[in-house]
Amino acid sequence: MSKSGRVSEFLKGKLTFEVCWWQRFSESLQMWKFVGERAKRVIATNTIASVVNLNHFQTTSTLSSSNYCSNRSHIPRLSSSLNSPRRSCSVMASKGATAPVTIESLNPKVLKCEYAVRGEIVSIAQKLQQDLQSKPGSQPFDEILFCNIGNPQALGQKPITFFREVLALCDNPTLLDKRETHSLFSADSIARALKILDQMPGRATGAYSHSQGIKGLRDTIAAGIQARDGFPADPEDIFLTDGASPGVHMMMQLLIRSENDGILCPIPQYPLYSASIALHGGTLVRYYLDEATGWGLEISELKKQLEAARQKGITVRALVVINPGNPTGQVLAEENQRQIVEFCKKEGLVLLADEVYQENIYAPDKKFNSFKKICRSMKYGEKDIPLVSFQSVSKGYHGECGKRGGYMEVTGFSREVREQFYKLASVNLCSNISGQILASLVMSPPKVGDQSYDAYINERNGILKSLARRAKTLEDAFNSLEGVTCNKAEGAMYLFPRIQLPKKAIKAAEQAKKAADAYYAIRLLNSTGVVVVPGTGFGQVPGTWHFRCTILPQEEKIPAIVSRLSNFHKKFMAEFRD
Amino acid sequence: MSKSGRVSEFLKGKLTFEVCWWQRFSESLQMWKFVGERAKRVIATNTIASVVNLNHFQTTSTLSSSNYCSNRSHIPRLSSSLNSPRRSCSVMASKGATAPVTIESLNPKVLKCEYAVRGEIVSIAQKLQQDLQSKPGSQPFDEILFCNIGNPQALGQKPITFFREVLALCDNPTLLDKRETHSLFSADSIARALKILDQMPGRATGAYSHSQGIKGLRDTIAAGIQARDGFPADPEDIFLTDGASPGVHMMMQLLIRSENDGILCPIPQYPLYSASIALHGGTLVRYYLDEATGWGLEISELKKQLEAARQKGITVRALVVINPGNPTGQVLAEENQRQIVEFCKKEGLVLLADEVYQENIYAPDKKFNSFKKICRSMKYGEKDIPLVSFQSVSKGYHGECGKRGGYMEVTGFSREVREQFYKLASVNLCSNISGQILASLVMSPPKVGDQSYDAYINERNGILKSLARRAKTLEDAFNSLEGVTCNKAEGAMYLFPRIQLPKKAIKAAEQAKKAADAYYAIRLLNSTGVVVVPGTGFGQVPGTWHFRCTILPQEEKIPAIVSRLSNFHKKFMAEFRD
Repeated sequence: MSKSGRVSEFLKGKLTFEVCWWQRFSESLQMWKFVGERAKRVIATNTIASVVNLNHFQTTSTLSSSNYCSNRSHIPRLSSSLNSPRRSCSVMASKGATAPVTIESLNPKVLKCEYAVRGEIVSIAQKLQQDLQSKPGSQPFDEILFCNIGNPQALGQKPITFFREVLALCDNPTLLDKRETHSLFSADSIARALKILDQMPGRATGAYSHSQGIKGLRDTIAAGIQARDGFPADPEDIFLTDGASPGVHMMMQLLIRSENDGILCPIPQYPLYSASIALHGGTLVRYYLDEATGWGLEISELKKQLEAARQKGITVRALVVINPGNPTGQVLAEENQRQIVEFCKKEGLVLLADEVYQENIYAPDKKFNSFKKICRSMKYGEKDIPLVSFQSVSKGYHGECGKRGGYMEVTGFSREVREQFYKLASVNLCSNISGQILASLVMSPPKVGDQSYDAYINERNGILKSLARRAKTLEDAFNSLEGVTCNKAEGAMYLFPRIQLPKKAIKAAEQAKKAADAYYAIRLLNSTGVVVVPGTGFGQVPGTWHFRCTILPQEEKIPAIVSRLSNFHKKFMAEFRD
Repeated sequence: MSKSGRVSEFLKGKLTFEVCWWQRFSESLQMWKFVGERAKRVIATNTIASVVNLNHFQTTSTLSSSNYCSNRSHIPRLSSSLNSPRRSCSVMASKGATAPVTIESLNPKVLKCEYAVRGEIVSIAQKLQQDLQSKPGSQPFDEILFCNIGNPQALGQKPITFFREVLALCDNPTLLDKRETHSLFSADSIARALKILDQMPGRATGAYSHSQGIKGLRDTIAAGIQARDGFPADPEDIFLTDGASPGVHMMMQLLIRSENDGILCPIPQYPLYSASIALHGGTLVRYYLDEATGWGLEISELKKQLEAARQKGITVRALVVINPGNPTGQVLAEENQRQIVEFCKKEGLVLLADEVYQENIYAPDKKFNSFKKICRSMKYGEKDIPLVSFQSVSKGYHGECGKRGGYMEVTGFSREVREQFYKLASVNLCSNISGQILASLVMSPPKVGDQSYDAYINERNGILKSLARRAKTLEDAFNSLEGVTCNKAEGAMYLFPRIQLPKKAIKAAEQAKKAADAYYAIRLLNSTGVVVVPGTGFGQVPGTWHFRCTILPQEEKIPAIVSRLSNFHKKFMAEFRD
């Protein structure tokens, strides 16, 4: 990326490189000062002097930061990194007291973190929805159409009956003794609940489990992975998590020591990754997916970005691959996956494989292959490559987002490193048991001959086929719009169309202090009630504009979305055409 | 604390002060070096030179750390903070590649974090349990008696029927249309489920909610807080969380910027606090509870430790109070709470109130008062004091640990600071919906006249009264042992007896490279199958020894625990008596 491109991107609502650098310099200065303080303290301790007052030292050594501090009102969302009460501009509770908590005194890593999927657009949508409820007819549309987040059940998708029956019975084991239960629940859900209850400490969904999750459920998940891949899986490698996000955070927390550590992430990316890297103080190393080849992942691009980061002194520790892609919807070809594995092996990178959309494949010529399967089929074993695969109950055909279930399969780390994973998992005790049970059910659904099998298959295929139709309809609609091109959603739950915005629109956005795609999305929302997420939230090649649109609204709503979007787009282009 | 006392504590299985210091010095050196690199980089950028190779600079400036690196095998669980591949001793994937992930190259904050509640003792217990299952009769006891963790349902406590009925119906709304449901479920659980379903997006427990939790459930919780305290509560102040732990982590993440930021924590403490502070890179500022006055919380001690920390250049940002206490079981008196509030107000500290045991009060003369109620009764409003109250569904009479539900009530922060709380909550999307529902049920259980009311009251009181009896029996048993003194459990779920260990036992522990209380606890476990947690995991006055024992095993097991413990203790004392 050119310097001008980078500056342009940062100016649009992000931090400038110079500010970043100045912040880091200021932090380092603090740190160096701290070394001096520590040294004085240790000298004092060793000479059995009591604690020395270091105030003078502290005040004189920080003068260089003060200009920055007084100017900071011009720099939104950035901490001055100054943490002594003596340097705060705020009113104190009493003399010598800690300064009140202000935005300036929060952890700068938190301030730096951004998470667009639940940003300004969502706030506007919530406000509009309240308006519609309190004053029907107050808006030019009768309902908000949420296409912003992968949350199928919020939009009317029904849960898989078998899964929910098992959950209800595990939560209420006394039902298992009652006659009426056999007319309300299927025989295999009863049998499965009995089996799961036997695996749980105290037969209780209300008990904390082993920190990695209930052993019996991990056995089931490992068997499911083995059946999927044709290669063995070890229940000791499974860590059950509250959705995929806590697993991603855990890996970032383990791998990132400072901003000298980098993580290679696709651009566009699901912003969990950039947020988590920012929160843990690391450096996001971008690699760009190639929109022209259907969001292709080119090894040459990986190499280029890796080398550039290394030249800057960054230790790149891991490569994130999202397959099927979010927000980009591509499904990687097996040969491409082999190249990625080879690249990680050669370069010593941990491969972080986000495989939460593994069930969501719509292109008939595409197939999901787990990276674990690819590695093992290349004869790479436990000692050859560190690999973490993330799976979630929130996606797939089941879409159980509210249950917060998921797992990560962790292979290729030494025993002592694994112990640190376990310790981190232990600090949070365990993931929720209903989510754990669901994760096991997703990896072991009803089989041919089970009473629930036919209903399960109908429910599953009904959802997946409908999603494929919705994806196609929306893709065609986008491609029919002036200046819009949209790659196929081969998998996952999203389309990520590119919009060629007229210069006049970009200028209007600048005047409104918005990124151009955010300006478009806010106008779309206010005119039509259709909620999409601007491309800036996911990252994109500077100067290009996109938005993410889910394929999740119920099928009968799709025509309304298409017509509202098309009418809006025509008017927008007419208003701003150069 | 005297220097000799501190050294003695650290030598017992912890890090020495010198090692800590050396680690920090080494980190600071790295950081300072980094400043130099950055400066070079910026100069290079500004002169439009391409990126310079800094290898030479990097290699020469780190020689001072190498001795430490080569010695590290003697220092368990400590990172060398060396993050360049050139400095690693491990084999590389290929020339120029990132070094493999080793214990030395993990985030040193993770390595520093300790969490004793799930430490060595638990591993031994799990091993023994497997032995008992595979070879019955192989141990001198027939079952493991878990007294180590607050996990009541794992030990046979039954969930509250009403709560579970509501959960099952919310998860399976189709049941609400069926005739059989009315003979299986109570009328008020059906009514409550219908009400909750109406509050949820898509009427679905499988949908992500608002990042703070479902608004209708937060309304219910706020009403419950208001009924408890007699002062208003605002649903916008409620953040629903997966148990209390993520809320604590979130506050630490927000408040801690560097090791210059400190958090005042009780000693003994629940190790979530020390672990979370370590993970976020802050400094634990200890204040000691006074065992002689029933684990009294003295303001003079708070002042002393706060001043000492400030003299060292630490900005103390918050005070943690656990009430009722964990592991100490004391219930704070109202007057004491007022003093604590006054102290926080005067010193500008955020008050982090761990109130997860608010329903667990056993002393007839004691009453739980929330800190929010205390603040408001002192006429301190929103602008006077920043206060966070943590609540969990895992504790109380319900003990729904596996559901991972809870909330924090956040008051006294500015709007822009609150927006950062919201952003952090958003990155993890939302807490699990069953946990959210449970949190609302806990704060709004059945009322007089509801069909479930009598059963609910019987279940609740039965559990609480039994816990009080178990606490008394165990307390008396401990106090009858030679050299053991045990304060009353006025509340919570634990006893924390002090053991006067003979010098010979302490010496034997040293030889076994264990803390003396860990040595005692491991011997106890291996001889009797009774699992307790050594006091070192919670912190204690140096030179004193304790263990934490829960009061949670079912009442019929208590006599066995008492007799096994007493017999073991007599033999232990006979073996080691000075």
